[in-house]
Amino acid sequence: MHSPLSPQLLQRMDAYWRAANYLSAGQIYLRDNPLLEQPLRHEHIKPRLLGHWGTAPGLNMLYVHLNRLIRQHDLNMIFVTGPGHGGPALVAQTYLEGSYTERYPAIERNREGLARLFRQFSWPHGVPSHVSPETPGSIHEGGELGYSLAHAYGAAFDNPDLIVACVVGDGEAETGALATSWHSNKFLNPVRDGAVLPILHLNGYKIANPTILSRLDHTELVALLHGYGYEPWFVEGSEPSAIHQQLARALNEMLERIQAEQRTARAKGIAHRPRWPMLVLRTPKGWTGPGVVDGEQVEGTWRAHQVPLAHFDNAAHVAQLEAWLKSYRPEELFDADGKLQDTLAALAPTGNRRMGANPHANGGELLTPLDMPAFRDHAIAVPRPGAVEAESTRVLGGFLRDVMRLNLAPANFRLFGPDETASNRLDAVYDISGKMWLDRIEASDNHLSADGRVMEVLSEHLCEGWLEGYLLSGRHGFFSCYEAFIHIVDSMFNQHAKWLRTSQRVPWRVPVASLNYLLTSHVWRQDHNGLSHQDPGFLDVVANKRAEVVRIYLPPDANCLLSVANHCLRSRGYINLIVAGKQPAWQWLDMDAATRHCEAGAGIWDWASNDDGDPDVVMACAGDVPTQECLAAVSLLRDYLPTLRIRVVNVVDLMVLEPRSQHPHGLSDRDFERIFTQDVPVIFAFHGYPSLIHKMIYRRSRPERFHVHGYQEEGTTTTPFDMAVLNHLDRYQLSLDAIRHAERFADHVEEATQRYEAIMEKHRLYIGEHGEDLPEVRHWQWRVPAPAASSA
Amino acid sequence: MHSPLSPQLLQRMDAYWRAANYLSAGQIYLRDNPLLEQPLRHEHIKPRLLGHWGTAPGLNMLYVHLNRLIRQHDLNMIFVTGPGHGGPALVAQTYLEGSYTERYPAIERNREGLARLFRQFSWPHGVPSHVSPETPGSIHEGGELGYSLAHAYGAAFDNPDLIVACVVGDGEAETGALATSWHSNKFLNPVRDGAVLPILHLNGYKIANPTILSRLDHTELVALLHGYGYEPWFVEGSEPSAIHQQLARALNEMLERIQAEQRTARAKGIAHRPRWPMLVLRTPKGWTGPGVVDGEQVEGTWRAHQVPLAHFDNAAHVAQLEAWLKSYRPEELFDADGKLQDTLAALAPTGNRRMGANPHANGGELLTPLDMPAFRDHAIAVPRPGAVEAESTRVLGGFLRDVMRLNLAPANFRLFGPDETASNRLDAVYDISGKMWLDRIEASDNHLSADGRVMEVLSEHLCEGWLEGYLLSGRHGFFSCYEAFIHIVDSMFNQHAKWLRTSQRVPWRVPVASLNYLLTSHVWRQDHNGLSHQDPGFLDVVANKRAEVVRIYLPPDANCLLSVANHCLRSRGYINLIVAGKQPAWQWLDMDAATRHCEAGAGIWDWASNDDGDPDVVMACAGDVPTQECLAAVSLLRDYLPTLRIRVVNVVDLMVLEPRSQHPHGLSDRDFERIFTQDVPVIFAFHGYPSLIHKMIYRRSRPERFHVHGYQEEGTTTTPFDMAVLNHLDRYQLSLDAIRHAERFADHVEEATQRYEAIMEKHRLYIGEHGEDLPEVRHWQWRVPAPAASSA
Repeated sequence: MHSPLSPQLLQRMDAYWRAANYLSAGQIYLRDNPLLEQPLRHEHIKPRLLGHWGTAPGLNMLYVHLNRLIRQHDLNMIFVTGPGHGGPALVAQTYLEGSYTERYPAIERNREGLARLFRQFSWPHGVPSHVSPETPGSIHEGGELGYSLAHAYGAAFDNPDLIVACVVGDGEAETGALATSWHSNKFLNPVRDGAVLPILHLNGYKIANPTILSRLDHTELVALLHGYGYEPWFVEGSEPSAIHQQLARALNEMLERIQAEQRTARAKGIAHRPRWPMLVLRTPKGWTGPGVVDGEQVEGTWRAHQVPLAHFDNAAHVAQLEAWLKSYRPEELFDADGKLQDTLAALAPTGNRRMGANPHANGGELLTPLDMPAFRDHAIAVPRPGAVEAESTRVLGGFLRDVMRLNLAPANFRLFGPDETASNRLDAVYDISGKMWLDRIEASDNHLSADGRVMEVLSEHLCEGWLEGYLLSGRHGFFSCYEAFIHIVDSMFNQHAKWLRTSQRVPWRVPVASLNYLLTSHVWRQDHNGLSHQDPGFLDVVANKRAEVVRIYLPPDANCLLSVANHCLRSRGYINLIVAGKQPAWQWLDMDAATRHCEAGAGIWDWASNDDGDPDVVMACAGDVPTQECLAAVSLLRDYLPTLRIRVVNVVDLMVLEPRSQHPHGLSDRDFERIFTQDVPVIFAFHGYPSLIHKMIYRRSRPERFHVHGYQEEGTTTTPFDMAVLNHLDRYQLSLDAIRHAERFADHVEEATQRYEAIMEKHRLYIGEHGEDLPEVRHWQWRVPAPAASSA
Repeated sequence: MHSPLSPQLLQRMDAYWRAANYLSAGQIYLRDNPLLEQPLRHEHIKPRLLGHWGTAPGLNMLYVHLNRLIRQHDLNMIFVTGPGHGGPALVAQTYLEGSYTERYPAIERNREGLARLFRQFSWPHGVPSHVSPETPGSIHEGGELGYSLAHAYGAAFDNPDLIVACVVGDGEAETGALATSWHSNKFLNPVRDGAVLPILHLNGYKIANPTILSRLDHTELVALLHGYGYEPWFVEGSEPSAIHQQLARALNEMLERIQAEQRTARAKGIAHRPRWPMLVLRTPKGWTGPGVVDGEQVEGTWRAHQVPLAHFDNAAHVAQLEAWLKSYRPEELFDADGKLQDTLAALAPTGNRRMGANPHANGGELLTPLDMPAFRDHAIAVPRPGAVEAESTRVLGGFLRDVMRLNLAPANFRLFGPDETASNRLDAVYDISGKMWLDRIEASDNHLSADGRVMEVLSEHLCEGWLEGYLLSGRHGFFSCYEAFIHIVDSMFNQHAKWLRTSQRVPWRVPVASLNYLLTSHVWRQDHNGLSHQDPGFLDVVANKRAEVVRIYLPPDANCLLSVANHCLRSRGYINLIVAGKQPAWQWLDMDAATRHCEAGAGIWDWASNDDGDPDVVMACAGDVPTQECLAAVSLLRDYLPTLRIRVVNVVDLMVLEPRSQHPHGLSDRDFERIFTQDVPVIFAFHGYPSLIHKMIYRRSRPERFHVHGYQEEGTTTTPFDMAVLNHLDRYQLSLDAIRHAERFADHVEEATQRYEAIMEKHRLYIGEHGEDLPEVRHWQWRVPAPAASSA
């Protein structure tokens, strides 16, 4: 067979590979004596050995060969490391190519720098053991497995020039998210998008077990990859020089295939889905590491996963470690100063072609702001509070349509959703751009297009992963999801929040666009789908993350939603969570009032209050349905107890409730008390679980006066209002609670309770009989209240 | 081709299918006139139309044919409905076979029952629109997509006689969880396990989009299914009688294949992995429903997903609905009383062979208690608190080994984990049973066995899904997981919690064994893996669920862990969350004390306290590392301020903190104040996010006196103690906080603060220099304190 690498090149590439392997092992083991210029002694070895060797040699082999390909073809390529615990390999490679030292000048390219490089790894206040935001060239945290391929595709979208090499570990390949990510190729348009080169690295083992894919017979594995829509190239073995030649040949052929498919598609401008190439690399776990330790096979087994040699009070282990490290012949690889030999260094690409310096992996460098439409143009006219109805998310849809329109040319905005964009009433965007679909389109299909910028697939994992990859490579996006099912990506959210939080502390990371969630079809209007579709707990998951990166908004109406969405799309480096309903609902604020209210984050609604600055009770609300119930309760109270002085407070930006020491949006205690008073009872109607409010306000003045009504895991297929009743968020319960806690009106509690019980009985009978809510509920409308009652 | 159904049988089966389709549509639409004996009028139609028609005809077709197969071969079969929104179909089928009426006698098999059946569907306080715990024969809630196939395999494990027919919708097939579930066949042993018959139902559309799998070309789809390890039978078309024959033939052949493979394996007792059969059914979405509505194609498109006809103020729609319903010829299907014709009813299996009555789908009926070893036999001898070290999860491993041993014969206990059983130090179980592995086993593999009862796969989704299926079909299990990554299955946990909560309210559902989580490799000992592996937030997710179903335990040492695990494995109907570390740690309680402490849930540790009933400060803790830091802080305080009266409180059962009105484990206010006092400052060292404690205690006496230290999202690769320092959970910070809040000692705050800053500086320098913790931290040991100081 043809040998694509000359003997000289092969020898140099192999030396480069040895250098990378040496540095990978050195990081795990050595705290001193980095070039092994002295005999290895116990004190040169780190006291705690923390890191993963097993995957490193394979990653290094791939990186060296991709470097060759980049140089030869002047490629624009980034590297996504699925087996991210192979952190030492990526640090080694970026150090060898020079991009590491540019980011971290103290880690010089000489003996001292090498010593620091080794020592810092997995060392307190050094660098983490996994690929992380600190790693140049990475857009993918490798600590939690499963998201590499989705990130890779996200980065490739709208980057026609880019090739994303994505290593998928055979452990990671068992995860759900990865298993469905293979189908991302159905959403990649070869005309406008770049390419993803998946590399399935079969090193055979996880921590303690063989992997499923590595033990499939060849036929079954090929069928699987064909079924996923790929043409696999296999490179298998353990003899380095043979692998070098095989791998070089495979990469040449795969690149040719990629470029040919792109040429074909682009020449005609016709999108199609080719069978894209992919690589299967089968090499031993812990390759080139210790073969046998204490009589047990290590290389090529699960025992090579982390540190193949440990317990250096055993002198034989010290000697074995030394022999292993010396097997890479560091003296041939580094010059007298400890710098990589020039002949080897010349193998790396230069400048931004180095994968550690490619700006696509530090997306903020490439980020351009969205061209934003005037959100006020989409305002709903609200002549007075509660005078008109609208579907908030449909209004937002018009705004997003304009965002889409204005940013078609730069091609840097996409909308993501699990089959729910239309259901969530954002379908106005289809006027501008359809849903991305590459396979067959039939007559009855609507809004499908290979050029579509709306990404729909019934996988929250893919939506989230693609969006993260798209954002981290410097673009903008918006993810709408049914509220309950966003929990499917709790863990991806966690990792992205951690990525953002760490990135803020990495000086060279330029902020990227925020990740914007719209949760709709929310808990209070899942009366039709029932209990399985009711869960507002994502708010709690988000609220647990660092204040530097998370924001939560509960716009009470369409104009507030517009204002919030406009703000979120302009923001950088956050995760913005917006919760808003899609059903027709009363509108409260005109655009000016909405903007002011959203800027303040929370405020007193004077038009609904009659407290003259001295309330008997504060009726607070956050969320659209809670706001409606709160105001309906106020109506009831104003009729029933006109002398009760009520203050109505609405919270849009939930983080204002937190102490300012906990969150930058937190109100000062003074402002908090200006709104909520120091000691007046607060009846708080909240969108989510009540405890979230309690935990936010526990340091505020007299927190026990807050009586929070929210979701209590009660629900089924029922009527919309019955959802509120089941969870005690309904107007009748809220108004009763207000009377109970307003001290001046203790005399009324008994009668009010009776009235409450009577109306509840009526409600239950009515919905059982008619299958829909009481007319007074369905037809309720806020009316201008009577003038404020005089104080008692 | 051979036609397996005689014309007479075909005609009867088709009639049965029509009856099921009629009942499915009737549930969605009709509130009255159930047999269409009067002309259909507007008032016969429900005011709110809530339900999903699209998938129902396909589900009905399958059910009718599986009934035929069950009868013909006396099969033990259950039905898992992936497209669970097809609730009306499953209700219709169980009604037709009689199992529904047995569970719900008011839904009689006559005209009145039919009227009630129709009316209750998606009606307030009726039955939900999705397959749910209320549905006879179901172990699978269909509201959230993705888990059907994992549930099916879980039910098949250790049920050699059972066949689980599992319908996978082509929408659901796009989810991550489902995409990896196909590989469950690698974990099914044909000798000891039953069979799963996957049925991929390609009806082509999700809510608004075509599905990926339905648009693959045939070759690619076949390759995919071969790659997953299945042999697909295809049944495709829209002409019912042709489908009847094709489907009958396919089912006959697939059953033969299943039984042949089982015979082969069982005759020799040799496990292998055959290419199991599966069905691909390609029929139109909304099949037999309205073809064209208002000029738009509905049948066979996404428009058939929910209600194909709506808006009945339009008389033409009323007429079209009537014509549609009458197309099933109800007058031929039901007798004069409105009961299914006897000739049709005879097609259903009888007794427990009916899929709606199969006890495997109401697992509590089959549940036998585990034979439990004496957990005390595994006790660590603790001659005095803090005298010995142990790895808590390793001790638990010994206990679980005995549970495994004692229950090998009934074959009703399995351990689940994502490649981490050994890492989590539970590997003693391998003495009794290995890790289930069916494919090739190589020399260096450890503890793999086709008979293994430890289920390891690098997918939390599969572990969770298999376990849920295993439990819901009446067995026992235990799931160990890295704490951070359990978030991957947050949403599955949510759905299971909802299932359990609803099941408690369904009288005929017999309680199943609890789902037991052990979270280990927890946040405080992820110093080596860094930030990505640090997240205690699953506690918050669990705490949001209904008190009837969730329990949270934080055993401080090995003996407490034994006591808690013993309790959890005996319990029914809960989700028990246990968090415990795997690293060597000091032990506090002997077995008697541990048992008493766990039974109480929380208590004062007198041996560590010197408060004489009148503390200056309460030092509280929950979790093993927090307990250690709390006691170390107490040591420091006892040395530094011997006259400070300290009470030490440990909490094992977190729910004791909640008000009794919120959780049955909640302490009465009196008991709470007996332990925590009414007003003494509490310095609380907590395993998770501090806000969880705040939200639990906000109704207790003076909650603002609780100063909770816990995880604050600060971490990286560092030392174990530095993790505590970064999050202010360390002994020095805790002791300083105690002095700050103990009023009598205000004079000491300044000096204590200086001492604190000095030790922190020393800590930072030391770990930077040595890469490990200060000797006084590493070698700290609790010592018997000096006698209680006299009160000031």
